[in-house]
This record gives sequence, structure tokens and C-alpha cells, in this order.
Amino acid sequence: MRQSKLFTKTRKEAPKDETAQNAKLLIRGGFIHKEMAGAYSYLPLGLRVLEKIVGIIREEMNAIGGQEISMTALQDKKIWDKTNRWSDEVVDNWFKTKLKSGSDVGLGFTHEEPLTALMKEYVQSYKDLPAYVYQFQTKFRNEERAKSGIMRTREFLMKDLYSFSLNEKSHTEFYEKAKKAYVKIFERVGLGEKTFITFASGGSFSKYSHEFQTLSDAGEDTIYVNENPSTSLKAGKIAINKEVFNDEVLKELGLIKKDLVEKKAIEIGNIFSLGTRFSDAFDLTYLDEKGQKNKVIMGSYGIGPGRVMGTIVETLSDDKGIVWPESVAPFTVHLISIAGKDGKTISEADKLYEKLSKAGVEVLYDDRDARAGEKFADADLIGIPVRIVISDKTLEKGKVEWKRRNEEKTELVELEKIVSFLSKK
Amino acid sequence: MRQSKLFTKTRKEAPKDETAQNAKLLIRGGFIHKEMAGAYSYLPLGLRVLEKIVGIIREEMNAIGGQEISMTALQDKKIWDKTNRWSDEVVDNWFKTKLKSGSDVGLGFTHEEPLTALMKEYVQSYKDLPAYVYQFQTKFRNEERAKSGIMRTREFLMKDLYSFSLNEKSHTEFYEKAKKAYVKIFERVGLGEKTFITFASGGSFSKYSHEFQTLSDAGEDTIYVNENPSTSLKAGKIAINKEVFNDEVLKELGLIKKDLVEKKAIEIGNIFSLGTRFSDAFDLTYLDEKGQKNKVIMGSYGIGPGRVMGTIVETLSDDKGIVWPESVAPFTVHLISIAGKDGKTISEADKLYEKLSKAGVEVLYDDRDARAGEKFADADLIGIPVRIVISDKTLEKGKVEWKRRNEEKTELVELEKIVSFLSKK
Repeated sequence: MRQSKLFTKTRKEAPKDETAQNAKLLIRGGFIHKEMAGAYSYLPLGLRVLEKIVGIIREEMNAIGGQEISMTALQDKKIWDKTNRWSDEVVDNWFKTKLKSGSDVGLGFTHEEPLTALMKEYVQSYKDLPAYVYQFQTKFRNEERAKSGIMRTREFLMKDLYSFSLNEKSHTEFYEKAKKAYVKIFERVGLGEKTFITFASGGSFSKYSHEFQTLSDAGEDTIYVNENPSTSLKAGKIAINKEVFNDEVLKELGLIKKDLVEKKAIEIGNIFSLGTRFSDAFDLTYLDEKGQKNKVIMGSYGIGPGRVMGTIVETLSDDKGIVWPESVAPFTVHLISIAGKDGKTISEADKLYEKLSKAGVEVLYDDRDARAGEKFADADLIGIPVRIVISDKTLEKGKVEWKRRNEEKTELVELEKIVSFLSKK
Repeated sequence: MRQSKLFTKTRKEAPKDETAQNAKLLIRGGFIHKEMAGAYSYLPLGLRVLEKIVGIIREEMNAIGGQEISMTALQDKKIWDKTNRWSDEVVDNWFKTKLKSGSDVGLGFTHEEPLTALMKEYVQSYKDLPAYVYQFQTKFRNEERAKSGIMRTREFLMKDLYSFSLNEKSHTEFYEKAKKAYVKIFERVGLGEKTFITFASGGSFSKYSHEFQTLSDAGEDTIYVNENPSTSLKAGKIAINKEVFNDEVLKELGLIKKDLVEKKAIEIGNIFSLGTRFSDAFDLTYLDEKGQKNKVIMGSYGIGPGRVMGTIVETLSDDKGIVWPESVAPFTVHLISIAGKDGKTISEADKLYEKLSKAGVEVLYDDRDARAGEKFADADLIGIPVRIVISDKTLEKGKVEWKRRNEEKTELVELEKIVSFLSKK
């Protein structure tokens, strides 16, 4: 895309009322817009990043047998009365409103209740199970405070998958599969290094739930990171959430206190065994091969793509701006033309832009009539992984200048060979 | 996808409280689920259709220079006070709720106000215009009645594009471009035949707005269709909405009363010139080449993908079920295996399913252990454009049976040649 056409612009300063580093950088880069505290719109660059994160999560959910749906935000009180979660005293972050008729409706903060009710229409026999159902859907949560930028908002996209299994054994098998899929997702979006599978409290049906915690001083959670590689899981590095950090748990997990280091972290995903809590409430049962009635065993698996995006910004930026991993970057290449004495550089840059686009490279082309310094600063702020500069000076040698956002070194590459050069990198 | 894995099933009867034909068929086919009156979830088959419609609209919006964003549903009262549209007496379909702090927030029924406020941060000079900004975003409208299935709901996805132009001339040029893009969209989704560009009232800044009305007895609108081809527009067939059907308008449009026939229709899109109504309220201006301040001219352009989906069902179904146009069908081919004496038919069907999938054909494979009659009835209800049956009988001849959903005739095609046969059809 031509940057001259992009309706957003970068800005030097973030709004004064914005305290979170992720939101400051994302607003300055023109990725997001703050509508009010805890509510951000995604602008063209930001939506591209969000969609790439969504795409990666979707691939991994489909790979473990997930079927995608899209449920409503509007929630019927009747459904939530069954689990006693309608009451504001039980759930303190509901947004509620009223239909014209006067009936109360809520805005879903999660979807266990309506999905369990829905599945009751489709599950009768053991042949109907297992089922793994997920969505990317907007949740509403009436958070008291919202000061973490796009990491904790009152309205946000969430991938929530719910598993419906025949028994504990097949539930556990899927749960482990989902855990591995999550590890893969966080590796793919560039957060693998800093993300720990974290034991957290499990509720009434399971000793533990598992959180995926990314080390960051901007995190709201405290975890204890196991620094002893010999006691880590195959699926990834492990940690313990402060809420279950005690001698009993340490013993059970075979961990030694001195190996564990306290860190701040951001929860970017969690998986949870629900047992029969919801199938009990909705009488979600199936008949087995012998005609016996059994309860369905459930699990839930959440990731907020916006929070993942915020966490990438918090953990991978430098003092010049954002550093996107290629897998989620809004574009792969930032092509910068520096206008010279005559129109030749511009026309060569235009040709290169066409050529790269035709080769399937996603290019943001800075064709603006602006100074080189301004273009470089904007490129660093926006954080596209590869920068290519074309100027009178590089063209004299028949070359362009190539640089990675996260490295200092530049390389002159022959103009004619840049497409194959990029494909090899 | 294997139908045995799909968690939804067809059902013989629609729920008794459902009166709309589109919702009856879509619920029976397992495309949607009713959460409450006016709120439907999209299940795997339904979401696939919706996403195809969204994909077509997105392509056409990008083709006319649209830039995609995603705004919040939560709305700040302050912004809406500027146009006096916060008041329930002015806008009667708000859903409103409260933050923990006690502040009122609304759920957006449209986005002119917040987007105009947003654009104020990015528009200063004539160089920043034009801008065409759109989103696919969930609107909330507190409808008094909701009896039209997915065609009028309290929560729905909407594509809303807003144009920001330098002056009336460039606004009108874009408006005509958008009109043509809309004609193309409705042709591509299979509604071209029955859809009329309809003159409707234009508000304070324009004599007319334009609606896209699809003939259907399920429609809530009354339009007067011009049956005289010599006075139709190049871009498509025209009609007049009842609200502006009078002698003055007829004269102005050069139409003759006796050519116009009264019909019921569904409004599946509308485009609207907004003039300076919103730029006045938000002081959205730009400096021209001479340094003079000018007001931005705006337009808005809406399509509800869910309503389009409902309209396709209303207008293209037959007494056996839904008939999807190929462009929006959840799958292209419904492959049906009829189990025979031994396992051979099943294994040939499995192989064919793999082969078609590898060739990039989107196949729903009915591999269920069910009677042929049940499979055929389900295929008719679900409405995938092409049905392929593989059975002992067809395999005896080394063939499969091919049939279009909207034709009676069947054709025996050599098993080995089915991929090339499909690509030619």
C-alpha cells in the first residue's frame, strides 16, 4: 500500500492520558485509536496485525479439530440464572441493558452458558462427541480500571474454544493437545521465548488450570519461573502463579523453591478444565453404547488477540518504536523512496513497489513527499521487519539498501536481485 | 469437511416461535441458532456463508479505495451529544449501559459520530483527502419487534463505509463509484436479478438517498419498480421507495406512472450523502492549496451481510430447502456416499473426498451412516450447489452421479474424470 494514501499518520507524542507503553506506541504509529478508557478502535495498520494474529490462532484451532462459530454478545438472563452467574454479586463485570419490552439482557463476558445450552440441541448420543467449538467474538467486561492499553479493555476480541468430551480420559487428551497448540501459537507470533506454561488455580473440577504467561514488567500477574531446565515440561517452560505458589504445589510438581524466581508477567492465554459444572446446570448428557446416560465433560480455552498484540509491543519494542515479528507484521517490507535531483528515483521506486507487490511481498511504500529523517523515524516507529531504501545514492550503484528493523547493519543489494534476495532471507 | 464430524445436524421442524422463512430454513439446516428474539448465533455452515459474503463485499470496497478499520461498539455520550443523537427521543433504538464509574455508555447503532471525531485527528490539509474508511462491525439496535429472522435483528454485523471528500464534485464521483460497487456486490452474491436501485428520501443534504431493494414478499418496504427498460439506469434497474413516490419525483426522474408497479422488497443496502452535517458538528475541516479552510463532504454506505444472507434464503429457496449461489455457498460440492454390500463404496468415496479436497474443491462429505433418502433430503435442505453421489450402482459403471441443486437432471460422470468435469462446469 502507498503510505501517501493511508489515512493515518504517525504522531510525535502520545495522548497525555495514556499511561500504557503498548497503547502509547500503537497510537503514535497510527495502529489504534482510543475511544474512551478501555475501548480502542483498530485502524488499518492495527487491524492488519490483529487479523494476522487471528489467522495464526484459527489455523491452530482448526488443526486440533476446532469448528468455528460466532455467537451473540446479547445474553438472555434465563440462561445465566441456571448457573447463578447472572447476579452482579457473583459476576462483578457484567454490562447489562434492557430490551424495549423491559427485559434485562447482558453483554457476554464469556460464553460457557449459551454454548452449553446450544450444544444440548445437538448432543444426544456418544456419536455426537467429541465436539470442539470456537469463535472469535467480542467480549464486554465492565472493568473497574482500564490502564493497560489494549491488554485489558472493556470490549475486546476473544478466541474462546470450548471442548465437549465423552469422559475424563478423552478430555485430558484434548486438553494436552490444546496446550501444545497454544505453545505453537505463542511461538508463531514471536512470544515463545518469554512465555511460560503457568500452573494456576483450577476451580472445583481440576487441581490446576494452565495460564500462558509472558514475562514483562507491564504484567499484572506475579509468577514464579522455573529456571531449572531439567524439570521443565516437554511442551515448554513452566512457572507457577503466585495464587498457588506453596510448598504442597511445589512438592506435587517436583520443583525446588530455590529454582524459582519471582517475575511480573502478562497472561496471554489460559486453558481450564470445567468438569461437569456446566453440563450439570444444563443437563447436557449423552447416551453411551449401552444406552446409559452420561454427563459431558467440558473445557474452555481462551486467547485475546488484542492482548497478544499489546504484549508483543510491550516485550519486543525498543526506544525507537515497535519491532513486529514477521508473522504478525502489518507489512513485510517498508519501502522508502528518497527523492533526489530528478524524478528518476521516484519512478524506479514506483517500479520496485509494483514488482515486489506482484511477487506477493506485502509492501508499505513510503512515497510521501517528506524528508529522509522523518521517513526513517516513522519506519522505526511502525516497526515493519524489513526496510528497503531507494535513493539517488543507492541507484548510482544500481542498488537498494536493505536493513532489518531489529538489526543495525545495512546491506546494499542489486536492484534487479532484490526479490530473490528477500525470498532467501 | 466430513459431515459426521460437523457438530450440527439438520432438523425436520423449525422452532414453533420462529415465523420468518429465512430463519426457519437456516435453523433447520443448522446454519444459525436463535439466542433470543432478534439475536442469532452463526454455526459452522452459517458462518462460512457469512464470511463469503463478507469477502465479496471487502473485495469491492478495497477496489474503490476503501481502508478497513474496526471501531468499538461502546460509545461515549460526549461524542453523540455533539449531533444531538444521544437522546432516546431523537434516536429510539439505542441500547445503553453504564460503566462502573456510573458514566453512561451506548452500544453503537451506526458510527458517523465516532469516525468523524477520529478523522479530525488525521485530516488537516487537502493532501489528507479523500479518505474512504470502512469496517465490518457489530451494530446494536434496540428494535421494538424482531420477526424477520436474520434480516432484522438487535445485534448484527454491518459493513459501513464513510467517505470524506474535498468537495461536492469529488463526493459525487465517489458516490457513483460506490453505487456501481454495490450493484456488483449484489450481482456477485446472486441477488442481481431481483435487486433495484431505489430512490429514497435524502435527508437535508441531498434530494435522494439510494437503497438497494430486493423483490420479496418477505420485505418490509414497498417500492415502485420501473418496468420500462428504456428509462433504467446504466448501472442497473431502478425503483422508487413509497416514501418519495409522488408526481414531482416521477417528473424529475423522467418516469411515467403507468410503467411503475408496486412491489414488496427487502432493503439490502443503502448509500447516503451526508453533506456537512457531521463535519459541521465536529468542525472537520481542511486547508486547501490557498490556505483556506473548507468543510469536508461526507457520505455513508451500508450493507448488512446477515441481511443479505437472509434475503438469499428468502428469494432463492424452493420447497425442499435452500439454494445457495456458488459464490456464497458454505461448500461447492456435497459428496454423498451410499453404503453398499461391502466396504468398497466407502473406501472409494473416501478417496474421492481426498482427491477433490486436494484439487482445492470445497467439499462437504456426507460420510454418515444414514439412509440414502435422509442424505438426499439433508442435501436439498442445506442447499450446496452441486451434489455428487457415489454408490454401488454408480461404481459398477466406474462412475458417480452429478446433479445441480437447482436442476432436476442428473448426469453420470466417470469417477476418474470428475475433477476436470467440475472445473469445466
